[in-house]
Amino acid sequence: MRLATLRTTSGATAGRTVAVSTVAVRQDGDAFVEIDGYADLGQLFARPDWRGIAAAAEGAKHPIDGADLAPVVPNPSKVLCVGLNYASHITEMGRDLPEYPTLFAKFAETLTGPYDDVELPEADPAIDWEAELTVVIGRTARRVSEAEAGQYIAGYTVANDISMRTYQFRTKEWLQGKMWEASTPVGPVVVTPDELAKDAAITTEIDGQQMQVGSIGDLVHGPEFLVSYISQIITLNPGDLILTGTTGGVGRARTPEVYITDGQTVKTRIEGIGELVNVARAQVPAALGV
Amino acid sequence: MRLATLRTTSGATAGRTVAVSTVAVRQDGDAFVEIDGYADLGQLFARPDWRGIAAAAEGAKHPIDGADLAPVVPNPSKVLCVGLNYASHITEMGRDLPEYPTLFAKFAETLTGPYDDVELPEADPAIDWEAELTVVIGRTARRVSEAEAGQYIAGYTVANDISMRTYQFRTKEWLQGKMWEASTPVGPVVVTPDELAKDAAITTEIDGQQMQVGSIGDLVHGPEFLVSYISQIITLNPGDLILTGTTGGVGRARTPEVYITDGQTVKTRIEGIGELVNVARAQVPAALGV
Repeated sequence: MRLATLRTTSGATAGRTVAVSTVAVRQDGDAFVEIDGYADLGQLFARPDWRGIAAAAEGAKHPIDGADLAPVVPNPSKVLCVGLNYASHITEMGRDLPEYPTLFAKFAETLTGPYDDVELPEADPAIDWEAELTVVIGRTARRVSEAEAGQYIAGYTVANDISMRTYQFRTKEWLQGKMWEASTPVGPVVVTPDELAKDAAITTEIDGQQMQVGSIGDLVHGPEFLVSYISQIITLNPGDLILTGTTGGVGRARTPEVYITDGQTVKTRIEGIGELVNVARAQVPAALGV
Repeated sequence: MRLATLRTTSGATAGRTVAVSTVAVRQDGDAFVEIDGYADLGQLFARPDWRGIAAAAEGAKHPIDGADLAPVVPNPSKVLCVGLNYASHITEMGRDLPEYPTLFAKFAETLTGPYDDVELPEADPAIDWEAELTVVIGRTARRVSEAEAGQYIAGYTVANDISMRTYQFRTKEWLQGKMWEASTPVGPVVVTPDELAKDAAITTEIDGQQMQVGSIGDLVHGPEFLVSYISQIITLNPGDLILTGTTGGVGRARTPEVYITDGQTVKTRIEGIGELVNVARAQVPAALGV
């Protein structure tokens, strides 16, 4: 099953698209079918019987071509991220394979839709891409074992953990380079686990040039391990997101370093899920702003 | 003005006190007065005219003695924390004074009431205290200057950033030692800025022995600077919390190291705000649990 959150009415604030009204949808071929009564997938996953509700939905249909999608879960209670979790990326950043996952956070305001423009803040000249397999929690999880953890996973989506590298490395804690407003596209859909191959390809392309290519089979700490590990520490709620880290090929690891520039189109894709397509836009300087 | 969130009905889940029903209150001498229509201070601060509403409230009264208080904002959209922000604590941790604030996150589930027991997880033998002045946001803040930032601060409260040091230092990112369920007491009240002296004393006491003593005047990056800095990155919403870092005297910096043990009473206090009083309880091993 493939599920999304569709914007049905949008507004804009400070140049940013904001959904005024959204609805959870199921993808049937080339149409999205409304799941009546659920404004987004976070609300849907809060229902224990969400799979049956989603499968049975027969609401209004919308063509997927040109659909305006929100982040799959626009307002998760938590967004956890894993750093250094692909052998190839760990090697390029000059580090050893880790015993424990490196965890950091994002916030709901950090997320943006799968096809939204992404602002390049004036304050940071070094803005980088990171394609990431993202776990979506489907059931409240607290102190669950790795063997049980699969039952708590609703499915998987794609995120581009766009990183403001200057801020990320201003101090030892990465958060301030990882939480910029509306900087992390998430989507386009959540696929249930049966739709995702264990070795699905994960790629990033900028203006048609391939920058990252890897396999999710190369993850050091897999989804079930991460759900179990995090749930020892804190309750995971339905709709919470875990970004599992990125593969080799980020801009900072290149010689010379390469960063995203104004007007470029960044495509981040996982085979079997779909792709994020985001145009980078330089921040309008405040003096010239509205 | 002194404001709090009072539990009017409580339940328990997994040994933890959970508020079934709460109400925002104003402290008048030795009574809390209900601010009808607002379940907590987060809801209240979302109203632009919250100061007038709070000042005019004439709801039911409750004695402050024995009152069951929730975290002042039980469900903030964001909890930001600053590390290494007192000259004395930076020195004891062996570091230089920083140019930029070190930021990390907590989540709403990490918070607990000012008088609640705090669980010491079996998984970490090194659990430490950190008394922190905490900024409470009173108005949506995005890209505000340091000069304007004071207008976005509702007031101040106390937090004890109880830290699971083994997890904190498993990797370079501190988050996994800082986000444990119900581990960060916050309260007892929010005081408006006029009630807080610039050099108020901040202290921690364990079973009557003073462990930390400092002055909030020793902060490297002050509240207005932090609100402005963070708001360049992400929108701060009413009720969001910024824990501004701790002063010297934490357990990890002692020789030998000292950590919190089962049954100890930890008191964390800021002059002019009040104190958190939390009894530490060893986690009941899962095999013996309910």
